[in-house]
Amino acid sequence: MRRYVAELLGTFIMVFCGTGAMIIDQQAGGAITHVGVATTWGLVVMSLIYALGDISGAHMNPAVSIAFTLAGRFEKKHLLPYILSQVCGALLASTVLKLLFPASASLGATLPSGSAIQSFVLELLLTFFLMLVVLNVACGDKERGLFAGIAVGSVVGLEAMFAGPICGASMNPARSLAPALVSGHLENLWVYLIATPLGATAAIPVWNYLTSNGKIDTI
Amino acid sequence: MRRYVAELLGTFIMVFCGTGAMIIDQQAGGAITHVGVATTWGLVVMSLIYALGDISGAHMNPAVSIAFTLAGRFEKKHLLPYILSQVCGALLASTVLKLLFPASASLGATLPSGSAIQSFVLELLLTFFLMLVVLNVACGDKERGLFAGIAVGSVVGLEAMFAGPICGASMNPARSLAPALVSGHLENLWVYLIATPLGATAAIPVWNYLTSNGKIDTI
Amino acid sequence: MRRYVAELLGTFIMVFCGTGAMIIDQQAGGAITHVGVATTWGLVVMSLIYALGDISGAHMNPAVSIAFTLAGRFEKKHLLPYILSQVCGALLASTVLKLLFPASASLGATLPSGSAIQSFVLELLLTFFLMLVVLNVACGDKERGLFAGIAVGSVVGLEAMFAGPICGASMNPARSLAPALVSGHLENLWVYLIATPLGATAAIPVWNYLTSNGKIDTI
Amino acid sequence: MRRYVAELLGTFIMVFCGTGAMIIDQQAGGAITHVGVATTWGLVVMSLIYALGDISGAHMNPAVSIAFTLAGRFEKKHLLPYILSQVCGALLASTVLKLLFPASASLGATLPSGSAIQSFVLELLLTFFLMLVVLNVACGDKERGLFAGIAVGSVVGLEAMFAGPICGASMNPARSLAPALVSGHLENLWVYLIATPLGATAAIPVWNYLTSNGKIDTI
Repeated sequence: MRRYVAELLGTFIMVFCGTGAMIIDQQAGGAITHVGVATTWGLVVMSLIYALGDISGAHMNPAVSIAFTLAGRFEKKHLLPYILSQVCGALLASTVLKLLFPASASLGATLPSGSAIQSFVLELLLTFFLMLVVLNVACGDKERGLFAGIAVGSVVGLEAMFAGPICGASMNPARSLAPALVSGHLENLWVYLIATPLGATAAIPVWNYLTSNGKIDTI
Repeated sequence: MRRYVAELLGTFIMVFCGTGAMIIDQQAGGAITHVGVATTWGLVVMSLIYALGDISGAHMNPAVSIAFTLAGRFEKKHLLPYILSQVCGALLASTVLKLLFPASASLGATLPSGSAIQSFVLELLLTFFLMLVVLNVACGDKERGLFAGIAVGSVVGLEAMFAGPICGASMNPARSLAPALVSGHLENLWVYLIATPLGATAAIPVWNYLTSNGKIDTI
Repeated sequence: MRRYVAELLGTFIMVFCGTGAMIIDQQAGGAITHVGVATTWGLVVMSLIYALGDISGAHMNPAVSIAFTLAGRFEKKHLLPYILSQVCGALLASTVLKLLFPASASLGATLPSGSAIQSFVLELLLTFFLMLVVLNVACGDKERGLFAGIAVGSVVGLEAMFAGPICGASMNPARSLAPALVSGHLENLWVYLIATPLGATAAIPVWNYLTSNGKIDTI
Repeated sequence: MRRYVAELLGTFIMVFCGTGAMIIDQQAGGAITHVGVATTWGLVVMSLIYALGDISGAHMNPAVSIAFTLAGRFEKKHLLPYILSQVCGALLASTVLKLLFPASASLGATLPSGSAIQSFVLELLLTFFLMLVVLNVACGDKERGLFAGIAVGSVVGLEAMFAGPICGASMNPARSLAPALVSGHLENLWVYLIATPLGATAAIPVWNYLTSNGKIDTI
């Protein structure tokens, strides 16, 4: 039960800070800039991994939980409660932001700036890259695991940095669902709900091949 | 006594660099930018935790000291001297900055850009997030504790980044009090003096629940 | 074989994100900014070193593989397959980016903004600095080696930051070759193909001298 | 002798990248921005500490070497050779930059934007903060010492960020001397040559007091 609360809380904080940065950037005439928004996403993931990693693993992302389960690295019985906790945390964040910033139209929802298929491919690749790094740093030796927060936070930060202007760089169905639902911007939501679990899942066979199921022959 | 001097010195350096960035940004026509100001806050907290963490714990924040005391992680007899040291350090910083930059009107005081209640809620949440991370990284095992500077500095940096344009992202009553007193901008000071200790205190029961008072059943 | 796939994959991700940032920055009217592009390069190298370092060493750069071989730190028989894997990964990245962003003219190719000789000297120095750091952090003790990702990612990030506007800050023949081939911008490609292995190789005798072939008399 | 070469090389790389960022920013119409310049300074110091720290201690700064000597943490006989190596490395960097960018007028020299006394006080405080962090992280236990690069690089980066627009944020007499000599901008050079060793030296008694000469009663 504690782990579920940790996931709810972690996803709440992540979505509150990340989409909050996008909302406040708009309200403040671009004062935060895209660089500041992407940095916020990367740093919030990094610090939450250090804060909550020992309690719940700090997934904060249904695509990550699904892929961990399929990779045999997460107990099946926890999957549904994790996803529910993550979605509740994200919805709570978007609701509080709606109350604090009622003038915001999109609440930081992810919206493709080009075609839906372009954003679909990008999100698939982004989540594939993310999950590949997550699997490698989460399943290695303990000392290297201490750097997981830095490695995973960096991937989230850099992907938000370079891909944000095209697809919003969601990599996370809960993060896309909540602002879309609360703001009513449901168009193209399917892109993010489908591409991100697919991308994360695609990382599993690659990781299995690279590491013989987690065992690395160190070079 | 050494610990008190370390807190005074740490808070002096933090407020000098952080509010100094805001003052110089104004003087230099926005050369530092909001991204640069937020980065300064995050990095100064991070490096001071590595420099002074072993001496005084590097609280540099009365809200943090109060919450640590209420959580039973800090001796009650040290609380008042810590708060006094922190306030003196911050006042010293604002005074030196006033002498160096006499043309600065607000000396980096935190001023809500919207309603007071909006900033109150934001500061409460920001300090809650900060203290949750502080409690988790400061009370875990030793190896993970080495990353405390990175995790806590990142939270301060990202909160300054995304919430700065609305509420100033104080998270710290001493940091708000000093420039307000020295510059005479006392309006809305109550927001920061009340919301930040409340937010930090609210993190204690949540942390207690998540960790059974600091003992984590590692997953 | 696994190591070759890891190199292909790592170089693919690095070139996709790094040159992708340059392409999207142009498409989005400079939203990412040069600071965001350089940050993307630094962070992607850092996180890939943590993700793939134990599998293949995470060279992702023929200049690095050549220099490691000449320094006696990498088996000669792996050199050609490594270079081929890196070039294939980079070509794959540029091809996917061409499909996703058909309007991009240069696909993030490195082009000197001043004279070719100026960029030649800069690239030689940049790759020399990079390889010196790589050799020192990769061949030291294990604990320090855990910080290799941070140190090497930082060098790539800072060199992209300060030298990018002049020479593109390639430091990597595969990273320059792929977008040049796919976009047809082959002018000045020789600068990057020649200067970067030369610079990396020049770091070997210096490193040998500084460390007596990897053994450091700790001060 | 090796240590002297390491200091020369480290200071060369640091001054080349740091002042190079300032020169290229001017040449490229501000493309790097002040945030990018400050980030370059912080990252180059951080990565050089990881690359050269075990060989020479990676001082790269006469003010740091002087203060270490006065604190009894560095052998007196090495002081003069260290300073000479640092000055030679910095002069070499400014000379190569002059050849690469003959149009640059100041070569990244530090010039006060306000009064000389304002910059004098700022430089004194900046170098005092820097040396306090250096002493604390360099003389603590080994594990914490691994984070020295991050802590010291961060201080340099944040001080360059917030104080750069006023005083140039030198903190280092060799870094100020070289571009001043090579570009002929000797006005106000005294500010940097005097304030920085004074500031660094002032950190010694404070550090002695805080730690009983390096021995910390851990809290």
